[in-house]
Amino acid sequence: MAAKMQLNPIGIIESCFRDKFGTPRQPGLAPEATAQLRLRPDLQPEICLQGLEGFSHVWLIFWFHLNRISQYHAKVHPPRLEGKSVGLFATRTPHRPNPIGLSLVRLVRIEEGTLYFSGIDLVDGTPILDIKPYLPEIEAVPAERSGWTSEAANSQISVEFSLIARQQLNEWQARLEFAHPGVNLEKLIRETIQLDPRPLVYKRAADGVSHAVRLFDGDVHFRFFDNPTSAEVFEIKVLSRNSPQ
Amino acid sequence: MAAKMQLNPIGIIESCFRDKFGTPRQPGLAPEATAQLRLRPDLQPEICLQGLEGFSHVWLIFWFHLNRISQYHAKVHPPRLEGKSVGLFATRTPHRPNPIGLSLVRLVRIEEGTLYFSGIDLVDGTPILDIKPYLPEIEAVPAERSGWTSEAANSQISVEFSLIARQQLNEWQARLEFAHPGVNLEKLIRETIQLDPRPLVYKRAADGVSHAVRLFDGDVHFRFFDNPTSAEVFEIKVLSRNSPQ
Repeated sequence: MAAKMQLNPIGIIESCFRDKFGTPRQPGLAPEATAQLRLRPDLQPEICLQGLEGFSHVWLIFWFHLNRISQYHAKVHPPRLEGKSVGLFATRTPHRPNPIGLSLVRLVRIEEGTLYFSGIDLVDGTPILDIKPYLPEIEAVPAERSGWTSEAANSQISVEFSLIARQQLNEWQARLEFAHPGVNLEKLIRETIQLDPRPLVYKRAADGVSHAVRLFDGDVHFRFFDNPTSAEVFEIKVLSRNSPQ
Repeated sequence: MAAKMQLNPIGIIESCFRDKFGTPRQPGLAPEATAQLRLRPDLQPEICLQGLEGFSHVWLIFWFHLNRISQYHAKVHPPRLEGKSVGLFATRTPHRPNPIGLSLVRLVRIEEGTLYFSGIDLVDGTPILDIKPYLPEIEAVPAERSGWTSEAANSQISVEFSLIARQQLNEWQARLEFAHPGVNLEKLIRETIQLDPRPLVYKRAADGVSHAVRLFDGDVHFRFFDNPTSAEVFEIKVLSRNSPQ
């Protein structure tokens, strides 16, 4: 039976997140984070997507393509638990026996076989396996018990921009909004850094260690101070070949 | 890349629903419907399930194993739309390019590597690919727009038992509760029939056509009257070899 359980992506995500580092660990946490999906033409997008535009939210079922093969452990250390461990099936870790992911995202619009999403937590290049409408009357159930996640810490981090980073941000924003109308890079950067993407080992490290997240065609450099209460974006380097010299 | 996207079930569902016919089309609609899942021992159930018992609800990701291969159409006629069609990705039809299903179910308990669920919509023998904790703060989003499903008809059906069916039910209940403590066959039968499992063509047919759903080891025979306002269970035949003569 297993031999027949073979998957074929229905399309590949184009996302603002270009690396695993910085990509939110759950959907909806960075509402400004956008992505698009062009459906495989042989699926007849103009027919198979009919009626989906009436749903504000959809499920994306995807393949964790950046995992190494068969890389999983029965015990997992979720970032929010700060060192404590739980069983892999009690978490949403990408490292699972079948590396299938599930994300609830906002469907912004559908145009010519391409779907536009926001609030995504998917890295650029993620293979999408399925799209399903969100059924709130069945899937928005009142929380009774939500295990360890209800105790996990949620940090509040303020994000500042240095003067030079602010200037670089403004130039980048002016250029990027041609290709991505409506993009708000400042909000996207704030939302991304406020989620504290650092691995646990860096959270324990001394203040001032610098990090970079790649968003669209830019590397956003930042450091944390008064760990973990504030962060400063001190430089933005745009990588695109089209960037002005 | 597609060549590597191969799945291996983590276990096989044992469910009260023995056929596609009668199995609810969504989870939660028949709260009395139960199932169990024994996890593959090589996954180290006692470790990989740690912490999951703290969640009242979990996602099951599964394979629609009763589909014929590559059997899907871009346009679908959902039973609730009574003849109208929508695109396949606007529905939860089992017939999808990647036949992966997603069900939110109640986790009743975990015992020795076996998980017990209720409110399931899975047919016996369904291969499970993944279990994920339900995260209500992210996944219970307020409905803004839920497309065609918000207009679809929900029927109210009263279910009666004939005198002989009532007697057969009592005998069956007395016997089955040894193997399935807490099972309530009357409630399960009512919930199953109230969902009106008939294909559309039969809903349009004359009153009095008889149907049967297989639940556990019994066939429950019923017919609809005053289509579709009431149904009568007129006979229950238990199939088990252990049934008294």
